[in-house]
Amino acid sequence: MLEWTRGQSIGEIDTPALILDIAAAERNIRAMADRLIHGSVRLRPHVKTHKCPILAHKQMAAGAIGVTAAKLGEAEVMIRAGIPEVLVSTPIVGRTKIERLVALSRHGMVLTVVDDASAARAISDAAARAGQKIPTLVDVDVGQRRTGVLPGEPALALARQVASMPGLVFVGLQGYEGHLQHVQSRDERELRFRASMQRLTDTAALLRGAGLSVDIVSTGGTGTSTFALDATGVTEIQPGSYVVMDDHYGTVQGVGFEQALFVLTSVVSRTRTTDVIVDAGLKALSSDSGAPRVRGVEGARYSFAGDEHGRLELGDAGSDLRVGDKVLLVPSHCDTTIHLHDHFYVVEADKLIEVWPIEARGRVR
Amino acid sequence: MLEWTRGQSIGEIDTPALILDIAAAERNIRAMADRLIHGSVRLRPHVKTHKCPILAHKQMAAGAIGVTAAKLGEAEVMIRAGIPEVLVSTPIVGRTKIERLVALSRHGMVLTVVDDASAARAISDAAARAGQKIPTLVDVDVGQRRTGVLPGEPALALARQVASMPGLVFVGLQGYEGHLQHVQSRDERELRFRASMQRLTDTAALLRGAGLSVDIVSTGGTGTSTFALDATGVTEIQPGSYVVMDDHYGTVQGVGFEQALFVLTSVVSRTRTTDVIVDAGLKALSSDSGAPRVRGVEGARYSFAGDEHGRLELGDAGSDLRVGDKVLLVPSHCDTTIHLHDHFYVVEADKLIEVWPIEARGRVR
Repeated sequence: MLEWTRGQSIGEIDTPALILDIAAAERNIRAMADRLIHGSVRLRPHVKTHKCPILAHKQMAAGAIGVTAAKLGEAEVMIRAGIPEVLVSTPIVGRTKIERLVALSRHGMVLTVVDDASAARAISDAAARAGQKIPTLVDVDVGQRRTGVLPGEPALALARQVASMPGLVFVGLQGYEGHLQHVQSRDERELRFRASMQRLTDTAALLRGAGLSVDIVSTGGTGTSTFALDATGVTEIQPGSYVVMDDHYGTVQGVGFEQALFVLTSVVSRTRTTDVIVDAGLKALSSDSGAPRVRGVEGARYSFAGDEHGRLELGDAGSDLRVGDKVLLVPSHCDTTIHLHDHFYVVEADKLIEVWPIEARGRVR
Repeated sequence: MLEWTRGQSIGEIDTPALILDIAAAERNIRAMADRLIHGSVRLRPHVKTHKCPILAHKQMAAGAIGVTAAKLGEAEVMIRAGIPEVLVSTPIVGRTKIERLVALSRHGMVLTVVDDASAARAISDAAARAGQKIPTLVDVDVGQRRTGVLPGEPALALARQVASMPGLVFVGLQGYEGHLQHVQSRDERELRFRASMQRLTDTAALLRGAGLSVDIVSTGGTGTSTFALDATGVTEIQPGSYVVMDDHYGTVQGVGFEQALFVLTSVVSRTRTTDVIVDAGLKALSSDSGAPRVRGVEGARYSFAGDEHGRLELGDAGSDLRVGDKVLLVPSHCDTTIHLHDHFYVVEADKLIEVWPIEARGRVR
């Protein structure tokens, strides 16, 4: 049950609650837009982080050319909410999803990526049957070893096949260097980014030399976006986490955005002097990037204490915490923590001003 | 978007999908009920695992006296779905939750636990104002060091206070040995369980000696339930995972239930010979207890490859996996994986027979 009152102070919000500091998020949206304003690289922010059309519209208003989604289900939410153009950054496979892709393409521009000729053919066949042409990028493995064909000749071969398929339009390349986003040293991250991008832009040049039109070269996340701005040949970037940030990105040098996301939790038990138990555990905070950081209680450290509980080991300064007191935690990983919640509790100047549905939460298909 | 057809084979279900083998789950429900049938210990299964009223009703039909919930939000779902009696196993703190508890108590029997006198008083005051009396257990720390007052005198002191409060009825003790559920050795687990239970049953004896009526002594999870059956003084157990099981419990000796829960995933990329990429990552499979196990592909091992992807490193036998092929994964931790999904895809003899909403998913309050 959702109970809230506009204007209540953050300390009155029921817990656990996912808190969005809207002023900080809006400053992040503006800061990213400002970085791009004088260059030729465009912004197609990734909505897999926030999964919320309200935030996507704010990104569009700040100059984004469209959004990126991880899953077709997220794209469905965004297109239906009026976002005109969505790139789905993971391959779409299987009859059901292909039918959904073709159906969704009637309502907005949905770009797809492929790294497999037979999967591309299946999309083309379905699109052609419906009298449609799906704009398609070839996904290139720039070093992450996840999805993507190898750069160079394998990418050229697949691009030629895509360009020849009646239901597809070849529009360019995607090469996501996800393995570099959290490289802590700014210099090392930049060096490795340049090497990854060389593979991608060399491949784009190879394709152009073969007579293919490569309109889009899409790359970049929050950790590498600053380097992508002057990477010759890159046309757009896909950062997601910058809107809200998290504790993991907070340790990466030179990223430069504000923490806007928190989980508010209550002390529910204090039977020892050394620690207290709070009501946010594995079901309210993702653990894949470690424990959250405690905000505002000096010396206190959080550790997971099960599905529903966390333990705050107290330094001396936190020893006056009592049952019912509230504490802000900084999630270690924004995407997976937001995915656990149905709503953002939107605060401004420590007051609750709105509650926003996270409409694409759970859209893993 | 949810697309499915009754009778389609498991290989046709869109992915990622949370699969429930209903025959295995029903055998688990029956097996637990059979264990209890000749003893005095009753079953109050924990619904924080499955979060699904349909399964709760099956547990009730097999003889459960009610269910246990972790959060009030889960209790709300269960009471509204017709489960007559719910024990909320974590302390309820804060004005909003207390008001919800009192409101919910008009519709069914909701038992609460307390480990703090001021929190108990707040519940009593609200209940008394509404002309109600909330049945209340004192939560005792039997060694987990999470919630709960210490056994013995501290528990007696709090129980006396609860018994004197106008809006509460003291009904007994809860002592959950969560730290023992996954002790791998059966002998060590049993030994430590007996020591934990001694603390709890000695405390119950102390309270009875002081003139308090201790009707309920509630304990036990899936890993210790077999020992709880003949633990003198225990009146009921709260196992949850036994209905579906998971890979973590699968490594614990002597637990003895069947795996009924899977995540179905598709191969979405195969650009190398050594591995394939599947469409289930951190947003479809919890990682707090490690990686899932691969079912049916000999020698293949899963590793997380981000929010939306997993990597199957292939043994020789799995080398014919292609894009579009489907693979079953055994979740490492059932509770936190179910919490990521909105529906169970219910299969019987490898055919999809129903899709059930996981109605209490996301109810972290």
